[in-house]
Amino acid sequence: MNPEWLGYVAATLTTLAFVPQAVKTIRSRDTRGISLGMYVLFIVGVVCWFGYGIALRSWPMIVANAITFVLGAIILALKLRHG
Amino acid sequence: MNPEWLGYVAATLTTLAFVPQAVKTIRSRDTRGISLGMYVLFIVGVVCWFGYGIALRSWPMIVANAITFVLGAIILALKLRHG
Repeated sequence: MNPEWLGYVAATLTTLAFVPQAVKTIRSRDTRGISLGMYVLFIVGVVCWFGYGIALRSWPMIVANAITFVLGAIILALKLRHG
Repeated sequence: MNPEWLGYVAATLTTLAFVPQAVKTIRSRDTRGISLGMYVLFIVGVVCWFGYGIALRSWPMIVANAITFVLGAIILALKLRHG
């Protein structure tokens, strides 16, 4: 059985996982429990994954990390704004 | 230039990113701003990445996702405990 589907499921889950956090943070503005360090490191990492996806011409990697970048950036911006 | 190094940097960053969040959550026990949905989805996704890494016999993917799983599980456990 081709494992590629597992990669697509994994990419979808770890990308969409940030949607409930973004929604919760947008609604609650409660960012005290969220780590600034995490989102700075994570977003730089996601940009690297995005670059790696371009280097490999891997559309799933490019699209998944573009979405994760936007979601992560929203959470980071709210963290910077609300402390 | 071989893009593999970019993949290793990306994997390292998006794995280690969870260390500051785990430390902050362990210390503060403040999990209100953290989304339960995010960590449930994310951990299931990480397990899939782990399985995908095994299917591809990719040690970086196996190791990175094993570490992320432990860190994510710590944060999820604290979220379940402290609400």
